[in-house]
Amino acid sequence: MKATIIGLGLIGGSMALDIQRLYENVLIIGIDSNEDHLNEAISLGLIHRKGNLKDDLDGDFVILAVPVDVALLLLPKILDNIAENTIVIDVGSTKKPICEVVENHPKRSNFLATHPIAGTEFSGPNAAIENLFEDKVNILCEIERTSYKKQEKALELFRKLNMRIRYMEPKSHDKHIAYVSHLSHISSFMLGKTVIEKEKDEKDIFDMAGSGFESTVRLAKSSPAMWTPIFRQNKKQIVKSLEEYIANLSTFKSFLESDDYEAIFNEMKNTNRIKEILK
Amino acid sequence: MKATIIGLGLIGGSMALDIQRLYENVLIIGIDSNEDHLNEAISLGLIHRKGNLKDDLDGDFVILAVPVDVALLLLPKILDNIAENTIVIDVGSTKKPICEVVENHPKRSNFLATHPIAGTEFSGPNAAIENLFEDKVNILCEIERTSYKKQEKALELFRKLNMRIRYMEPKSHDKHIAYVSHLSHISSFMLGKTVIEKEKDEKDIFDMAGSGFESTVRLAKSSPAMWTPIFRQNKKQIVKSLEEYIANLSTFKSFLESDDYEAIFNEMKNTNRIKEILK
Repeated sequence: MKATIIGLGLIGGSMALDIQRLYENVLIIGIDSNEDHLNEAISLGLIHRKGNLKDDLDGDFVILAVPVDVALLLLPKILDNIAENTIVIDVGSTKKPICEVVENHPKRSNFLATHPIAGTEFSGPNAAIENLFEDKVNILCEIERTSYKKQEKALELFRKLNMRIRYMEPKSHDKHIAYVSHLSHISSFMLGKTVIEKEKDEKDIFDMAGSGFESTVRLAKSSPAMWTPIFRQNKKQIVKSLEEYIANLSTFKSFLESDDYEAIFNEMKNTNRIKEILK
Repeated sequence: MKATIIGLGLIGGSMALDIQRLYENVLIIGIDSNEDHLNEAISLGLIHRKGNLKDDLDGDFVILAVPVDVALLLLPKILDNIAENTIVIDVGSTKKPICEVVENHPKRSNFLATHPIAGTEFSGPNAAIENLFEDKVNILCEIERTSYKKQEKALELFRKLNMRIRYMEPKSHDKHIAYVSHLSHISSFMLGKTVIEKEKDEKDIFDMAGSGFESTVRLAKSSPAMWTPIFRQNKKQIVKSLEEYIANLSTFKSFLESDDYEAIFNEMKNTNRIKEILK
């Protein structure tokens, strides 16, 4: 069993660890534009050796786990050189642009577009952990465009990882994920910014951070290099979700300004429904 | 050792559990406007018996753990009837109004204003847990206005609870906490609202919630009955923090609209500093 992992960050690195754990006689080859990350991946035991995009596209899996802008550039080239029985799986947070970029590629059926809903706020090879994907949802797009045998191979991997599979259209994925993931990140980043700007004495933030701030601001630790291209690719949906979010915050503020505490109570009461939804 | 706990929710109930654990020969008396909560508190072992505001203000501690609007009404009455050696400690999330309401009370020195920075998104007697306060910050206001012997008694309790003590002026507390706690709650509630409004099919929220949404929206499970009066009492500071938050979100949106991804990258990069601050 041979797998090539392109991009040895949190997702790629964790995938490498799990594949080693779940299959027998595994050879993991790593590719990354960052030479330090490659060496780190070797010393952490994530990969067995370094590879390149010419010679190492002939294993069982190629996992493409790079920032979504880089993925758009790499995927067509990977498909140009991929071996007949190899499947390439991307794991990016936007699905429409990547499906479009290979829409008419002659090797389209060697590709499967996925989005494992798993992660932490950390990045780089050091962030890789075992069992990251256990019991997490994996959203697969345009599965019908992947050849049947390769679908089977990918589904076997996800079954071994113990993931829950959902099927969605790329456009629908990008719309929903704008609200549930991308907007959460912006909300968190801007909350962090607002508080940092205010609190010149950082000790005060630290001391008071227990009061909910820490979990709300967790995502503001995320990697700008990973998130900037996601925001770019899903700009239209994100702008829309941001407009609705800002409108809701402004309404809340106007209720406060006009001392309408019944309305404020009701806003919170109605949103408490999130308890049952997330259970 | 005798303590009267007024308000048997998360904070009052957890305090009751810890006092039983940390002192010997403890009698805990419970007072709550909700008869069901009182009975629940007895069956959960939080309190030994029900009490009332006439006869049970003569123990070592009176812990006032009710919503902050109710606290403003109760505290003067409690001080009217409190025994000479009893200290009453409030635990509310706003400190200026409560300090002001008893500013000129003849028994002012029997009172200590505190804000333990501890909690979860849950409420009611069932939410009470042991060790909630372990290693958490407790902010004490106007300590000099509490008589020395009673200060000592309170500090001994906080030491047994293993809390870290900070001293602040009420006004300064309310300003900082608006940013670090109150704004986080509004940000979370409105994020939850925005997503719920969008997602008619709640299954979609659930499935995608792993992607950061769950932690960002955690506080939207909080109790409206507790939070409405907090927002009311700290209205001025909260409106100000909300204005700054909305302005930051609007700037981010305009960067997106004008495709200024360098600015977006920098916004995130600068906010990443939160990593070191919260370490």
